[in-house]
Amino acid sequence: MVSQKMFELGRRSSKIRQIAEYGRARKAEIGNEKVFDFSLGNPSIPAPEKVREELIRLIETTPAEVLHGYTSSAGDMGVRESIAKYLSETFGANADASLIYMTCGAAASLCISFTALLAKGDEVIVPSPYFPEYKVFIEKAGGVTVTVPCEDKTFKLDIKAIEAAINERTRIVLINTPNNPTGAVYSEREIKALADLMQKKEKELNREIYLLSDEPYRELYYGEGKLPFVPNYYKRSIVAYSYSKSLSLPGERIGYIFVSPECPSADDVFAAVCGAGRSLGYVCAPALFQRMIPGVLGLTSDISEYRENREILVGALTEMGYELTPPDGAFYMFIKSPEDDAELFCERAKKHEILLVPSDDFGVKGYARLAYCTSRATVINSLPAFKALMDEYKK
Amino acid sequence: MVSQKMFELGRRSSKIRQIAEYGRARKAEIGNEKVFDFSLGNPSIPAPEKVREELIRLIETTPAEVLHGYTSSAGDMGVRESIAKYLSETFGANADASLIYMTCGAAASLCISFTALLAKGDEVIVPSPYFPEYKVFIEKAGGVTVTVPCEDKTFKLDIKAIEAAINERTRIVLINTPNNPTGAVYSEREIKALADLMQKKEKELNREIYLLSDEPYRELYYGEGKLPFVPNYYKRSIVAYSYSKSLSLPGERIGYIFVSPECPSADDVFAAVCGAGRSLGYVCAPALFQRMIPGVLGLTSDISEYRENREILVGALTEMGYELTPPDGAFYMFIKSPEDDAELFCERAKKHEILLVPSDDFGVKGYARLAYCTSRATVINSLPAFKALMDEYKK
Repeated sequence: MVSQKMFELGRRSSKIRQIAEYGRARKAEIGNEKVFDFSLGNPSIPAPEKVREELIRLIETTPAEVLHGYTSSAGDMGVRESIAKYLSETFGANADASLIYMTCGAAASLCISFTALLAKGDEVIVPSPYFPEYKVFIEKAGGVTVTVPCEDKTFKLDIKAIEAAINERTRIVLINTPNNPTGAVYSEREIKALADLMQKKEKELNREIYLLSDEPYRELYYGEGKLPFVPNYYKRSIVAYSYSKSLSLPGERIGYIFVSPECPSADDVFAAVCGAGRSLGYVCAPALFQRMIPGVLGLTSDISEYRENREILVGALTEMGYELTPPDGAFYMFIKSPEDDAELFCERAKKHEILLVPSDDFGVKGYARLAYCTSRATVINSLPAFKALMDEYKK
Repeated sequence: MVSQKMFELGRRSSKIRQIAEYGRARKAEIGNEKVFDFSLGNPSIPAPEKVREELIRLIETTPAEVLHGYTSSAGDMGVRESIAKYLSETFGANADASLIYMTCGAAASLCISFTALLAKGDEVIVPSPYFPEYKVFIEKAGGVTVTVPCEDKTFKLDIKAIEAAINERTRIVLINTPNNPTGAVYSEREIKALADLMQKKEKELNREIYLLSDEPYRELYYGEGKLPFVPNYYKRSIVAYSYSKSLSLPGERIGYIFVSPECPSADDVFAAVCGAGRSLGYVCAPALFQRMIPGVLGLTSDISEYRENREILVGALTEMGYELTPPDGAFYMFIKSPEDDAELFCERAKKHEILLVPSDDFGVKGYARLAYCTSRATVINSLPAFKALMDEYKK
């Protein structure tokens, strides 16, 4: 006799994890280099050297009982101040350290935000395709997930469809740019259009609606300049950030929640964030990695590696006849399944030792996600297999 | 408009934290050495040197993308196997790595366990006095906290009172030995008596009742030998462990949940733990600290420092006329308030720059908690202040 819901959630582990586990076993069986594993968003590029230097420096110069001691529940104030300074300088945001809550990674940032903002039955608008754990986190916080399909092929926000979905139960619009699983990136124009719509709807419905921006891929952008900083366009903004991808530290669980100082009653929102963190057991994010952050602000892993993987794959796969929209950010691309059923396509790919995730779990049908945060060798060596796979469809 | 519950929880931060924050400000004002801060359970003794060595070794010898990469959701299997081996060798437990879930510290271990086991309205029996966050975590998981007072003065389990409290809504009995806030330790005889009672009640009520043992202080014991390992006495046992106190790593958030292999349907319980971890965002505990654990199993910080603090304080305070029961473990002692109202006593202590936590927040009246995980100087220098404080009551 355990919680039936939790039991079921534990039993049917996420599809992504299942495929990754299969990949692990298959590699042990036939050799690492023979499996073309594009299943998991686990960065293949090491953290910047400065991360290593900072960790060693902190360990060698800080008394252990201080270095590994508790920080404040919301995180070390010096660390939060340096992040606020960085955000202000980089994005012209008027960031405030007292509105930054250090978290144990992206999942924590999201779970805390949903718990802080949602009352039972409140709706969260989630553009699809979307990262499947969103739904798990929203439901746990008592909310209801309302998916709204993105535009066909480009996977850009469909503002009209979002407008139609916002109602008197909407509390949050969740966006994720650069996007997992499509690699789409929203331009300033698109962010502005969404912000305008939400402002209009807030007035119309006389209701507070938050824009929650999930940004673990913020720095993984292959275009020019920096991406628009969402809180600069909409006052009631909250950013859920993680260093997992930008610094290649997914295992270390370090990130933060940023409540916009422009947000009306920002202090109350932050209090709710603190309360949610407390009630979920998320106080004092991992201390060593908190303290490492000020020394590496603005750095990223060498994302040119991802850029090249992307270019090789986009070029080669398109030439082979695969349909795909070249991704502008993150390290994912969405490939149209050559047959209607993406699950069958991914099963067929598996026979060529190519591991992809069918799009069904991301809330849309007919695509497969390819995570190209792999070694260059995996990319290169997979090409004949992709060719052979496509040839099956051409017969 | 945020979650009202979370807002309130965030606003009225825990009394312990409030006093600690006051201490921080006061030290900045009059100097560190002039404030006798016994408010917080933040270990004063550094982690064992081996922790530093292992961290450096791992950082210098493991490729960063592996070291800081994702582990499995439940944790790295090699780490879990080494913990299972350690528990089997140390406690004669028949531990099973596939039933160990690595967590982000004690709070995470508890939140996940409550979420895994409780359905709405299920009752959790909590002997009082108790760590106040228990109630926050239980309520968040939909449960109801049923406090049962411990025996007077000794703070041992009152088995008769627990018997009277167990009913057809009870799902968990929670124990914490060595205890925060009293320092009490339950003997093998007491654990057996509780186990016998629970077995009897399970039959009587035809209901599964879990024994959840919160053990961050397991190794902080000042008596002879090792403490009884709870799962050896009751099949349906779950241990919530953290390395925060034993290795002086409270900021690093590393611990585990151990589901007893003797537990009927242990695999189902573990699946619910995995589901709860997933739904709360707790997958893949901090990776570097996971990987450090196998190299330091069985080590603890030098707890003789705490033992000496304890001996000095017990001796001196008793002689001054304070009533207290010498603690057998952890690094807390419970002092009887010389006046009925412990809050007034603690306010009066504050005027002597002594920071204690009134027992009201721990669910009992008339005591103050003293955390003696402080420097020796704080202990020694506080004695005249304690004397002056008691003198006020003798006038």
